Amino acid sequence: MEVILAKHAGFCFGVKRATHLAFDAADKGGDTYTLGPIIHSPQVVQRLEEMGVKSVEDVAEIKNGSTVIIRSHGVAAEELEAAVRANLEIVDATCPFVKKAQEHVATLSKEGYDVVVVGDAVHPEVQGIVSYATGRVYVVSSGKDVERLPRMAKMGVVAQTTQSFEHLNEVVAACLARGGETRVYNTICDATAVRQEETKKLAGEVDCMIVIGGFNSANTKRLAQICRELLPRTHHIETAGQIDPAWFEGVQRVGVTAGASTPKWLIDEVTERISAIDKDKIG
Amino acid sequence: MEVILAKHAGFCFGVKRATHLAFDAADKGGDTYTLGPIIHSPQVVQRLEEMGVKSVEDVAEIKNGSTVIIRSHGVAAEELEAAVRANLEIVDATCPFVKKAQEHVATLSKEGYDVVVVGDAVHPEVQGIVSYATGRVYVVSSGKDVERLPRMAKMGVVAQTTQSFEHLNEVVAACLARGGETRVYNTICDATAVRQEETKKLAGEVDCMIVIGGFNSANTKRLAQICRELLPRTHHIETAGQIDPAWFEGVQRVGVTAGASTPKWLIDEVTERISAIDKDKIG
Repeated sequence: MEVILAKHAGFCFGVKRATHLAFDAADKGGDTYTLGPIIHSPQVVQRLEEMGVKSVEDVAEIKNGSTVIIRSHGVAAEELEAAVRANLEIVDATCPFVKKAQEHVATLSKEGYDVVVVGDAVHPEVQGIVSYATGRVYVVSSGKDVERLPRMAKMGVVAQTTQSFEHLNEVVAACLARGGETRVYNTICDATAVRQEETKKLAGEVDCMIVIGGFNSANTKRLAQICRELLPRTHHIETAGQIDPAWFEGVQRVGVTAGASTPKWLIDEVTERISAIDKDKIG
Repeated sequence: MEVILAKHAGFCFGVKRATHLAFDAADKGGDTYTLGPIIHSPQVVQRLEEMGVKSVEDVAEIKNGSTVIIRSHGVAAEELEAAVRANLEIVDATCPFVKKAQEHVATLSKEGYDVVVVGDAVHPEVQGIVSYATGRVYVVSSGKDVERLPRMAKMGVVAQTTQSFEHLNEVVAACLARGGETRVYNTICDATAVRQEETKKLAGEVDCMIVIGGFNSANTKRLAQICRELLPRTHHIETAGQIDPAWFEGVQRVGVTAGASTPKWLIDEVTERISAIDKDKIG
């Protein structure tokens, strides 16, 4: 059985950076917290917990003088301000692309634009981005949503970094159709599109796909969905322990991919486990 | 034979305004000029000439102390400045929608944007709009054109007022795909789209279409093209004198439409001429 690992499986730039910053802070010791999970990987969160890093939901839960790590998806402007006021040492692991989107929203608001954020309203990244608006701000997920918005003379558009380009295009076209001015910052990070394209190609060339990543990770769930449409024999797992040897009955080629928040060690465990199952079968 | 006149045939808001301003100036007397034809209607230009208004191509050709009328399509910033320097009395008949596009280009340039104008590079409106840029400016007519442009961090987009919305959308999508910031002013005037839609509908309901307007008028040529695709029996004319009675052999219903620069008197002459031909046939 051949195991083919997608070239862009796993950590993107922002997640790699956030994880490094978090483990560095953990190594230093002292009271260390993250505001919400550092990345959407329960395994990484657990490893940090084992090193003494606690994940809390509110600055109020953090002891004075502690270190707080801001997760890759970013936090709301008020939370960051609360951390500053509480005199906490701040390690800002916000993905630089998310940071850019937050800054653009702040600028657009300041310059009198009504802000339109293309994304998922309940995603923490979007909630963080939205919080930087000081004027009117709306989260939309389609052109149809734009049609329902009130009259706006100046529209400022940014996107959740993991949105598809087609999505952004559709929303911008709907804004343009309203006339007036539309100012767009393309804040999409193409790591997501690249990983999806590669995964799609791989799913077309194998008999079985294994998608590794947090069950709470939107981008991993999307990868699994893309694979499933092409190949019903697709399995979304978080860890190697969830693998069922029966999945590989009669399989010649297995494709493996992983979401942006899946660490290399989990991917390695999975590929090793699949190879071991293969040896067992032969042996 | 039934003659059906399109509801939006003829003068749009900007052309009506420009024509009124020009005839008012002509009525006042004195040396009066237009810089280029006031609108794309040779018949209107001729009528103004009969009233003593001369069309010239250059401010240098105008006597000091004269009145100069700026045509509906606008002129280049340098020409307007030259007219001011020459101490001419200026009647600015630039279409307010074109004026807006010129102002947006000036603002975008001033704020450090590279300007992208969606339109026809040789059209006087576009040449006027472009002249308001003080930085880099490019005229494009498709998304493909955008791909060939040099790297730009901040793109400012405006459109020739008569462009189609699909066209603007395509260019904006190509700009967004380059990343960075895209600031768009939708400067399209929907009079063109409304007239085209209505004409298309009418062409589908008649046996013969008559399109009236200057042979040098881009929007009239486009109307004739739209009709011809649906109805080969389409005739583009400038005046009633160009009508051939043979066109109406066996025709039950004639549709009549006219470009944005076609005056009402020319449309009336055409519908009267068609009715007269019909009476001759019966008589």
